[in-house]
Amino acid sequence: MANHHDTTPFLDRPLPSGFIAALIVFSTLCFSLETLPDLKPVTRSFLYYSEIVIVAIFTAEYAYRIYSAKDRLRFIFSFYGLVDLLAILPFYLAPALDLRSLRLLRLLRVLRLLKLARYHKAFSRLGEAFRLAREELVIFSLATLIFLYLAAVGIYYFENPVQPDVYRSVFDALWWAVTSLTTVGYGDMYPITPGGRIFTFVVLMLGLGLVAMPAGIIASSLNAIRRRHEDDSEESQ
Amino acid sequence: MANHHDTTPFLDRPLPSGFIAALIVFSTLCFSLETLPDLKPVTRSFLYYSEIVIVAIFTAEYAYRIYSAKDRLRFIFSFYGLVDLLAILPFYLAPALDLRSLRLLRLLRVLRLLKLARYHKAFSRLGEAFRLAREELVIFSLATLIFLYLAAVGIYYFENPVQPDVYRSVFDALWWAVTSLTTVGYGDMYPITPGGRIFTFVVLMLGLGLVAMPAGIIASSLNAIRRRHEDDSEESQ
Amino acid sequence: MANHHDTTPFLDRPLPSGFIAALIVFSTLCFSLETLPDLKPVTRSFLYYSEIVIVAIFTAEYAYRIYSAKDRLRFIFSFYGLVDLLAILPFYLAPALDLRSLRLLRLLRVLRLLKLARYHKAFSRLGEAFRLAREELVIFSLATLIFLYLAAVGIYYFENPVQPDVYRSVFDALWWAVTSLTTVGYGDMYPITPGGRIFTFVVLMLGLGLVAMPAGIIASSLNAIRRRHEDDSEESQ
Amino acid sequence: MANHHDTTPFLDRPLPSGFIAALIVFSTLCFSLETLPDLKPVTRSFLYYSEIVIVAIFTAEYAYRIYSAKDRLRFIFSFYGLVDLLAILPFYLAPALDLRSLRLLRLLRVLRLLKLARYHKAFSRLGEAFRLAREELVIFSLATLIFLYLAAVGIYYFENPVQPDVYRSVFDALWWAVTSLTTVGYGDMYPITPGGRIFTFVVLMLGLGLVAMPAGIIASSLNAIRRRHEDDSEESQ
Repeated sequence: MANHHDTTPFLDRPLPSGFIAALIVFSTLCFSLETLPDLKPVTRSFLYYSEIVIVAIFTAEYAYRIYSAKDRLRFIFSFYGLVDLLAILPFYLAPALDLRSLRLLRLLRVLRLLKLARYHKAFSRLGEAFRLAREELVIFSLATLIFLYLAAVGIYYFENPVQPDVYRSVFDALWWAVTSLTTVGYGDMYPITPGGRIFTFVVLMLGLGLVAMPAGIIASSLNAIRRRHEDDSEESQ
Repeated sequence: MANHHDTTPFLDRPLPSGFIAALIVFSTLCFSLETLPDLKPVTRSFLYYSEIVIVAIFTAEYAYRIYSAKDRLRFIFSFYGLVDLLAILPFYLAPALDLRSLRLLRLLRVLRLLKLARYHKAFSRLGEAFRLAREELVIFSLATLIFLYLAAVGIYYFENPVQPDVYRSVFDALWWAVTSLTTVGYGDMYPITPGGRIFTFVVLMLGLGLVAMPAGIIASSLNAIRRRHEDDSEESQ
Repeated sequence: MANHHDTTPFLDRPLPSGFIAALIVFSTLCFSLETLPDLKPVTRSFLYYSEIVIVAIFTAEYAYRIYSAKDRLRFIFSFYGLVDLLAILPFYLAPALDLRSLRLLRLLRVLRLLKLARYHKAFSRLGEAFRLAREELVIFSLATLIFLYLAAVGIYYFENPVQPDVYRSVFDALWWAVTSLTTVGYGDMYPITPGGRIFTFVVLMLGLGLVAMPAGIIASSLNAIRRRHEDDSEESQ
Repeated sequence: MANHHDTTPFLDRPLPSGFIAALIVFSTLCFSLETLPDLKPVTRSFLYYSEIVIVAIFTAEYAYRIYSAKDRLRFIFSFYGLVDLLAILPFYLAPALDLRSLRLLRLLRVLRLLKLARYHKAFSRLGEAFRLAREELVIFSLATLIFLYLAAVGIYYFENPVQPDVYRSVFDALWWAVTSLTTVGYGDMYPITPGGRIFTFVVLMLGLGLVAMPAGIIASSLNAIRRRHEDDSEESQ
């Protein structure tokens, strides 16, 4: 993720980022509208021509970005350089590829909205917070995975004999464990045996903290970094 | 939101704020009761006359507030001045407007309950916490929106072929993404394909932290501000 | 809540608190078992005799506590003194009262389990944390109530015309608001109109932080108090 | 949980932990696949032979670990020593035991994945955070249990007369309390009476903080310990 290009002052940027951002939002909206069933022919042709205009502007922007980059190769192979290319490439390869894969690639465009946030100090502070807490995040991810698996095996043994069509295998039980421990609880699977319910209670009491912890760790970490930055600015005064 | 009026001592206020607050709660209750189906005529007429009395008192209070304000124009165009006006205006315009829009405007009254909290130090501290964390909140809102959209597009590709009547378009998929990542999980839409379930698991693991982060940031921010205030009061001693 | 009695050393307490705690748990279990439908007569009579033994021991304990209290009147009218009395009184008044109200009073017994925690330092620290954050907790409770009400009125206007049997009145809509903003999401009520779903999205984004904030505030507050205690103990060294 | 063995340098370990970890994941996958209904005979025999190979390697590893341990008895009776034994023992006892209990014991293997995390500093820091906050965690667990029970009894009295088949006893009501206060909300049980809904609102407002608090406490605690470690490393410089 080379960011040598981003340190150029605002006026040097090829197009006002507000306009490009609006265009990305518009192209995303067009993409979403296309998925609607029973579209009128007039809407369909409007979406088709919008597509052409959008890709034309994106192509021009991509060309200009290559042209104005100090290190052109580095821009082309940077994260956003590749995103920019992948956003327009499918359009030109459409006759060669089938429509389905075309659509899947097009949605990468929305990642470019993150560019709006790239210059923010808060974003880099978040990155710092992640690095500071990375070890704990890895531990908790591993612990969460193991916990989810053990919860799934447990509920499988309690519920499979009674609801063999709901808790069909450990994989179905894993889906139950994921939706329950994240507290989403769609209601498509739930234990009905006393043993399964008591097991669920224990699993929820132990596991909710586990799942909620990463957010708490990041928040603590962000807080620590904010304080560190404040201390630094106080010392430099 | 001019608050020059609020620094006047308690005794100068037109009416005891407790009485006005109780009246607002009562008028809110009346408004809610009106929405009940199958109301008896006697209840309906009671609600009608309550309405007249409430609006009469609110009009008198509004007139007094204008009269007693140091800068009358400023009060009229302040946030609460406009709320006060909008709370009584629909009643007088009722013959000219249809009943439906009348009701929609009337509920603005409840915002006046926030006045009770206006004088609290904690409320201004919260405002400070929001300002301190504003940059990060904006980043997270943007990141959450992008994340929700990508989650919706992803689940659409997994589930639309199998459940075309449930995941009809990216917009329906967005509704699923919102209810899932906030962990509400009504159960009106949920993935049934193995791919869709694994995708949901990944999305939840990454996205729950994203959605829970703003509250954590605000809490950290409030904490930092409370500490800062304590430090200030210690230094001034 | 007089606690003059609690500062007496362990050996002076009328009965080992572990035994009384176990008895409370047992009596709670008996109470729960009684609510089971289709109980066998032998179980019913076992529960009846257990009840007599439990009340007898509780009465003896209550009498001993009054006897051993330094200030007897103060103990009788203290919070736990009244709980102790209310736990045994219904049994003796059973012939005079109907069975239903008897049961409702009996469950107060379980509050006595909190006594186990009464001596802990962590519990008093929690009280301190609540006092420190009380102003903010009051503000957030008020703001949450107003927010829930406005969310209910909003969804009522979106969904009532389409689902008049689900969103029947603002009161039903309030139930939806409570279950949605706490992210419980039973699935008994959910919006189906595009407007109602967008409104729900906005309400959730703004409201989840509101509902999650109290816990964050208490956690921050606890943290601040723990740090203050540590500073105090370091200074006194 | 003796960890004298873990301080040996990486090269002395009997097998690269990455390989063993991969094998545990593979054996876990095999275990999960076995629970799938309608397995083909070829898959079933593949899983059978995989099992033999896996247990053979695990047995070799166990033997090597005993051989290379400084204090052999201490390793055998350590937590992971017993886990290692229990992971292979059922295979050799299979003819004597029935298949069902065999499976239940085999899943203990997955706990060995936690070994990957054993050497991490973050893990010991988490243990420290738990010890620091243990008193408060115990208090909150007790308070949560009492709160859940009282919520269950309350909803039972509100809903049992109207939904006797849903809220059959206090035990069913407890299941409702657990799924509601953890905000899972499967939707298999929900109050429909006005009293039950208002009661649920109050219970949720008071109880959500209670259930969310442990995670907040651990996060605060982790934060405090991280700061303490930083202070220590600064002082030692």
